Amino acid sequence: MIDINAYLECKRDLVNHSLIQFLPAGGPTVVNSAMRYNLEAGGKRLRPVLTLATAEALGAGEESILNVACAVELIHTYSLIHDDLPVMDDSDLRRGIATCHKVYGEAVAVLTGDAFLTLAFHVIARYGLIDGNAEKAVRIAFELAEAAGTKGMVGGQVLDLLAEGKNLSLEEIENIAFLKTGALLKASVICGAIAAGATKNQLKSFEKYARSIGTAFQIIDDLLDYEGNTADIGKPAGADQTRLKATYPALLGLDEARIKAEKLYNEAVKSLDELDCPTELLAALAGKLVYRER
Amino acid sequence: MIDINAYLECKRDLVNHSLIQFLPAGGPTVVNSAMRYNLEAGGKRLRPVLTLATAEALGAGEESILNVACAVELIHTYSLIHDDLPVMDDSDLRRGIATCHKVYGEAVAVLTGDAFLTLAFHVIARYGLIDGNAEKAVRIAFELAEAAGTKGMVGGQVLDLLAEGKNLSLEEIENIAFLKTGALLKASVICGAIAAGATKNQLKSFEKYARSIGTAFQIIDDLLDYEGNTADIGKPAGADQTRLKATYPALLGLDEARIKAEKLYNEAVKSLDELDCPTELLAALAGKLVYRER
Repeated sequence: MIDINAYLECKRDLVNHSLIQFLPAGGPTVVNSAMRYNLEAGGKRLRPVLTLATAEALGAGEESILNVACAVELIHTYSLIHDDLPVMDDSDLRRGIATCHKVYGEAVAVLTGDAFLTLAFHVIARYGLIDGNAEKAVRIAFELAEAAGTKGMVGGQVLDLLAEGKNLSLEEIENIAFLKTGALLKASVICGAIAAGATKNQLKSFEKYARSIGTAFQIIDDLLDYEGNTADIGKPAGADQTRLKATYPALLGLDEARIKAEKLYNEAVKSLDELDCPTELLAALAGKLVYRER
Repeated sequence: MIDINAYLECKRDLVNHSLIQFLPAGGPTVVNSAMRYNLEAGGKRLRPVLTLATAEALGAGEESILNVACAVELIHTYSLIHDDLPVMDDSDLRRGIATCHKVYGEAVAVLTGDAFLTLAFHVIARYGLIDGNAEKAVRIAFELAEAAGTKGMVGGQVLDLLAEGKNLSLEEIENIAFLKTGALLKASVICGAIAAGATKNQLKSFEKYARSIGTAFQIIDDLLDYEGNTADIGKPAGADQTRLKATYPALLGLDEARIKAEKLYNEAVKSLDELDCPTELLAALAGKLVYRER
């Protein structure tokens, strides 16, 4: 029996410790200090934990994989900072504390986001400079750039901004959810698999798993925003409702949305069954995503 | 005798043609359209031409090097869009036309910059997926991430914002100039050299060359801002003066600043003399940087 909470906590600590090591050394200029502020704000670190757990399923030790896991989290961190800007989602609160631009001003927040995005590729490049890693690093950089770019997070954020106040179809909602959240969740699994030397067939199964949990994760996020309170979710509750955002519960209702998330969880677990390696941990992580309370 | 103007025009056309090919296919969403707007605004394309000319000096053909050259220009393009934002330098005009945020709004401008930065690493990753290129791609990604990050352009932009209205020493001005401009100019040369398979010693000479022209380029930029008019330089003239920015002419005076730029040009040419390959083109390009009129 896996103690998934203990596993999560252990890997989260490992990732947090490692992320801080990647911060540029030298004098505490304002952008260094803003980067540290954002990393120390914490977070669930689900993406890097998925990267580590995927690599572990394939039998890869965690030392150099940790670089890949951290790069994924750095891209996530950049996207939160830019999404929170007044010209975007205009959020004052993130992970329970003031957002980057509230503390450091908008100019520094834009630059801090830029710095995190750049640092992610810096970390992957350094990983690739290790003997024998170059080809893996190039494939990982490709996956991350796909997930972050216009066919991923940037595209999703644009569509999300354009969608405010509009009635979207389920297909459109699913597309935005995949671009904004699913693409990087998928990449966090795929990059762990590449780093661990997965075969083509294994990559296919991991991708199905990752796609299912990506959508499930977004549905649960939307549900928590409807049901939650600010203290629980660390950002202003009902923010999506206030801005009339297209969400799963808005279209499907609360019950149907939850049923859909649970169906996706079952599909994710089924995809893992295709794999010829131990996947209990990844199944337990999928469960944590779907049955979480914040 | 090299016709440097014809060379520049030919390579600029090549780069422009290639840059457009990298734009994401698919429907004209607003961010795709904003990316196209920024690329079609043109520009001197000095950085990618430096990349191509460096690789040519080492005897490398231009087909796959063009990817590397374009990645450098994509990073430059991202930085201009973010630097022009109202919360940064607040510029309405760039390359003679309205800046990205004036046409598409600030949210899209932030995301378009993000998209260009991401695309640069996407292009390098794809270059690295070509047989035999992975190690070069990793080294190039490292150089670009160094140049773009907190020890490069992001750091320089932060220091520049903090420096407004302050009296800086020559050393501080030089540091900001290197971070903001010199770091990517250096990377554009070094990445061309890496792609062409330069030796360690060759890289050292190219780096000296690139550092000298980087600083010279910034001095001339500052001088043009003092002397120029808006039509000539494509952005509001005297913008640096208006915002009391730290510049070389402000500290050294116009004549001393020009003498310094010419001295750096001579040093750049001297660094080229150390190389055992044909460098007339790179010398001519250095001349174009220092003796340009806009």
